Amino acid sequence: MPNSSSDPFATLAAWQPAVTKSGKAFDLASVDPAAKPYSTGTKAEDKAAVETIAAEIDALQDIFFADKRFKLLVVLQGTDTAGKDGTVRGVFGRVSPLGVRTAAWKAPTEEERAHDILWRIHERMPGSGEIMVFNRSHYEDVLVPVVNGWITPEQTAERYRQLNDFERLLCESGTKILKFMLHISADEQRQRLQERIDDETKHWKFAIGDLAVRKQWADYQKAYAAMLGATSTAWAPWTVVPADSKTHRNLMIATVVRDTLKGMGLRYPPAKPELKGVKVV
Amino acid sequence: MPNSSSDPFATLAAWQPAVTKSGKAFDLASVDPAAKPYSTGTKAEDKAAVETIAAEIDALQDIFFADKRFKLLVVLQGTDTAGKDGTVRGVFGRVSPLGVRTAAWKAPTEEERAHDILWRIHERMPGSGEIMVFNRSHYEDVLVPVVNGWITPEQTAERYRQLNDFERLLCESGTKILKFMLHISADEQRQRLQERIDDETKHWKFAIGDLAVRKQWADYQKAYAAMLGATSTAWAPWTVVPADSKTHRNLMIATVVRDTLKGMGLRYPPAKPELKGVKVV
Repeated sequence: MPNSSSDPFATLAAWQPAVTKSGKAFDLASVDPAAKPYSTGTKAEDKAAVETIAAEIDALQDIFFADKRFKLLVVLQGTDTAGKDGTVRGVFGRVSPLGVRTAAWKAPTEEERAHDILWRIHERMPGSGEIMVFNRSHYEDVLVPVVNGWITPEQTAERYRQLNDFERLLCESGTKILKFMLHISADEQRQRLQERIDDETKHWKFAIGDLAVRKQWADYQKAYAAMLGATSTAWAPWTVVPADSKTHRNLMIATVVRDTLKGMGLRYPPAKPELKGVKVV
Repeated sequence: MPNSSSDPFATLAAWQPAVTKSGKAFDLASVDPAAKPYSTGTKAEDKAAVETIAAEIDALQDIFFADKRFKLLVVLQGTDTAGKDGTVRGVFGRVSPLGVRTAAWKAPTEEERAHDILWRIHERMPGSGEIMVFNRSHYEDVLVPVVNGWITPEQTAERYRQLNDFERLLCESGTKILKFMLHISADEQRQRLQERIDDETKHWKFAIGDLAVRKQWADYQKAYAAMLGATSTAWAPWTVVPADSKTHRNLMIATVVRDTLKGMGLRYPPAKPELKGVKVV
């Protein structure tokens, strides 16, 4: 049972032995997007568990904020319709907006392109006691240009190293990094895109360019596999999340986040002795 | 019944006729901090109502985000312990972090002081479809310096005008501004500060300087009264919230926010005709 372990990474390693530090491409096809390794009952029971864990995360965040010893960065990556927005809502929707911020990353602007790839990212890093959730991330820079042939394999390898070095700096400065790859099947994406087309109230979520990107499905899977293998480090490991089931996706990510916070040994800051006996008038 | 009206400002005007555009100081002492004009039952019933309204705000925010015609700025002002953090959690704690951001304002840094008082504020304004909640705000600049005698009455009047002009620009650019003054009694503050001292896990919330500020209580009340009178405009009115009861405070603010969102006539963006009949392959 994955969620009975106190160390989410040990658990994930047991479930996903292929995400290693080998630098070789991860065998993404070996993970069934419809699997539910974190499920412990019916869909209704899993949904209730997500609610419970989301409330636990809220309570832990309160101490995390007061504690101020750590910062938490949660990276959500996945193809269109993989469920990034839904994860933010499902996992962090019970936390006070004071304690969690989000950043949604799009194609870089002209000003951003005039800098290195981590310039715009660095600025949005969480501070002490903060949780930052990335909807897409710096990993777009080793996916989109790779699939479209805009950079060479050497440049891609260089970027992997840059990302790893950057994340090590963050880790060494007190930032816990959790990276989740939301893994859905091609067929599930087809259904979700079709739903956005058939339901007129969802048209705003749909861009005609999404269909062109879908045609690159196989190339993206390959780029993801290479990226997962090259950038799953001891200090910032990737977790591949079977995400065809929205409930399972939320359950798995919420569990890892909750267990990570629990594992930090959070506590309120030490009392201030000089306040002892002070009376407010 | 305040919360039966469709126009929260009409309602507030009925309940608080003193907040006008007269430019004269508002009679803050006339508002009982222990009043509960929005209460409709027992404390438990009011608490349940807050939960219900918070969920309604979450649902409305989803359309607000898609709609993209508006931006919403919520300003929370009040003395230490007035309940600003608690309001963010109580009123916006059910909204997805994707849709609401917060900014907590402290004394300006050296870089910020090298600019006009609105420079740092402008940068944090909500964009289309966004909700921004300010914990303290640009109004600190017509409170702290006034109470401490750092600026002349002429300079204060100039700042009032600058704030009003700035907010008119925002309003004319699609930003709805809701400003709440969380009004607690001196005795309630005393109890809450004492609690932070007596409970060691709350020491991190307490700075010894808070006691010095408390000694300026009367001066702050006077500065608030002048500020409320001078900056409650048609385009950005102030609402004075009796806040000795945390539940009532959340109920009143949640109701105004909910009714404001409801009154916007939010809708999903128009359908894209070119998507009709498209099949995803």
